[in-house]
Amino acid sequence: MNLVNPTTLFYGAPIRTRSTAFLYPTRKAQPVYSSNSFSSISAILTKEQKSNPPADKLQETQLEFQFDFNSYMVEKANLVNQALDDAVSLKEPVMIHESMRYSLLAGGKRVRPMLCIAACELVGGEQTTALPAACAVEMIHTMSLMHDDLPCMDNDDFRRGKPTNHVVYGEDVAVLAGDALLSFSFEHVATATENVAPDRILRAIAELAKCVGAEGLVAGQVVDICSEGADDVGLDQLEFIHLHKTAALLEASVVLGAIMGGGSDEEIEKLRKFARSIGLLFQVVDDILDVTKSSEELGKTAGKDLVVDKTTYPKLLGIEKSREFAEKLNKEAQEQLSEFDHRKAAPLIALADYIAYRQN
Amino acid sequence: MNLVNPTTLFYGAPIRTRSTAFLYPTRKAQPVYSSNSFSSISAILTKEQKSNPPADKLQETQLEFQFDFNSYMVEKANLVNQALDDAVSLKEPVMIHESMRYSLLAGGKRVRPMLCIAACELVGGEQTTALPAACAVEMIHTMSLMHDDLPCMDNDDFRRGKPTNHVVYGEDVAVLAGDALLSFSFEHVATATENVAPDRILRAIAELAKCVGAEGLVAGQVVDICSEGADDVGLDQLEFIHLHKTAALLEASVVLGAIMGGGSDEEIEKLRKFARSIGLLFQVVDDILDVTKSSEELGKTAGKDLVVDKTTYPKLLGIEKSREFAEKLNKEAQEQLSEFDHRKAAPLIALADYIAYRQN
Repeated sequence: MNLVNPTTLFYGAPIRTRSTAFLYPTRKAQPVYSSNSFSSISAILTKEQKSNPPADKLQETQLEFQFDFNSYMVEKANLVNQALDDAVSLKEPVMIHESMRYSLLAGGKRVRPMLCIAACELVGGEQTTALPAACAVEMIHTMSLMHDDLPCMDNDDFRRGKPTNHVVYGEDVAVLAGDALLSFSFEHVATATENVAPDRILRAIAELAKCVGAEGLVAGQVVDICSEGADDVGLDQLEFIHLHKTAALLEASVVLGAIMGGGSDEEIEKLRKFARSIGLLFQVVDDILDVTKSSEELGKTAGKDLVVDKTTYPKLLGIEKSREFAEKLNKEAQEQLSEFDHRKAAPLIALADYIAYRQN
Repeated sequence: MNLVNPTTLFYGAPIRTRSTAFLYPTRKAQPVYSSNSFSSISAILTKEQKSNPPADKLQETQLEFQFDFNSYMVEKANLVNQALDDAVSLKEPVMIHESMRYSLLAGGKRVRPMLCIAACELVGGEQTTALPAACAVEMIHTMSLMHDDLPCMDNDDFRRGKPTNHVVYGEDVAVLAGDALLSFSFEHVATATENVAPDRILRAIAELAKCVGAEGLVAGQVVDICSEGADDVGLDQLEFIHLHKTAALLEASVVLGAIMGGGSDEEIEKLRKFARSIGLLFQVVDDILDVTKSSEELGKTAGKDLVVDKTTYPKLLGIEKSREFAEKLNKEAQEQLSEFDHRKAAPLIALADYIAYRQN
């Protein structure tokens, strides 16, 4: 297993020695981090951080194969953390690379890269074939969070208990570091993918680009922004927002994995539908948890949606119908996997169940 | 010639008729534009807008072939304006596409697309082959201006006499529209390029991505930001900033054109050097004009650099040595073109001369 030693993350990278001191400025009046301060930057997901779905809800497949979802997630997260650390190394100009690494290596479950790798393996590919694409979807996820956190957007000062990128590096650098991560995600897929035909890599790049832009993530964000405070948000609009803000990148993750792994068009489309279902499922469950759990159980403030009168599935459908909708989405997701090899589909089956039955 | 009728730009596009009213919000308290207000969005470059270099400075090649640089620029600008209008049409969600189009179709000389097309034709390709790449470099140029103009960056309220994107659509939408243009530029190259082998398109995408990111445009911007107010900016640092902030995208423009046109590695590298020289040349000339011309002659405030004590070539080298440096850069640029067909190289030769001898 490739375990990242977080204390070497920022100081172990080779740096050219020619006289380019101007490439190393640090911002005065910004928090100065010691190597110890960064010790959680590349946090490794531990088994303890995740809980299994209730045993009675587990799919037969999992019990049969004794699939260990937690170990799988930890293994893939470590693999991806190491690959991201290598792909975006600390080089000149230092501040921009530091800013990119600060958010990119700040932990997270690496769900999107895991989806990408699992989809690749599901259609018969090797995980290394999907690794650059897996890193790319995580880079895009990170840049979207960096831009989302900006004062002109959600204005969040903390994420996962750490100051957000613009708080540490300034808004200007956070905007630029997001732009750099976005463009680098395409460069990385184009240059680091091995053993895949160029036309398939090109197809993957087109899918990746589409999921970010004005017909993907950005579309969801802009409709969400325009919905704030509106009292006439209906189910169609709510679904549009979630399908674009959340599901589009999950969709790209599995589709890229399947393309890189040599999947047929039919396999790719099944996985696309699977991802759209679990994307929506994630949001429905999130909405339900917000009104049914305590802050203590959630590990974050409960009832937030009610306080700001946010449009949610429970608000539009009621709790019971929302639960039924979640069950339906999980069933639809699982159905897309029914014709694949059960053993190979185990990670995706387990992920859908994890999303459906999580308690926080 | 494909002349754009600006009055049909925003209202002629077909829009789906299903009930998706939520996709059409407009911001209250934002300026409301009538179709007439947008009449200059896709401004067509006119011959009168450009001046030829002094006749005695014209290259022999141009006189020999009677190359009409102005007509060439106008023709290519119209071609590119129409292609951009088609590529980023007005569709749902309307606000984000309106925001993207507002800046993308706001005029400009289309120098980068022209470089891309001219390089493609120089190595023997058809202009249509380079057109998606030509549009992509202009999309990236536009998104970099949109993010540059943000309050957290240069905080500019006007560009080319029009309110900047965030003034019209809000900062959040301007950030998102920039992100969408950036990702769409890659999608467009990947999906709209015809008659080019996939491995060459992939190579073009890698070049395009590299020119934007932390080793390209963003690198130049972040070093520039960190240099503000510093009194120890030397020639190395100044060159680093300009080579990354300005030259990198010009370099990508010609390199993409040459790749799409089927150029050899040797031809591509010659054109890369050409672009780096004219990128630096542009900045040196800009610095000289700022201290030698009146505001009236420039059409903008002269002497700005002195007022803010900006590090410039005249400040570091003096006017005379700066002029010599400009001559040297133009010579170096032209030398890279010497082994190409003179007639086909005429647009690039003329562009370098235009940059070198412009008076404003």
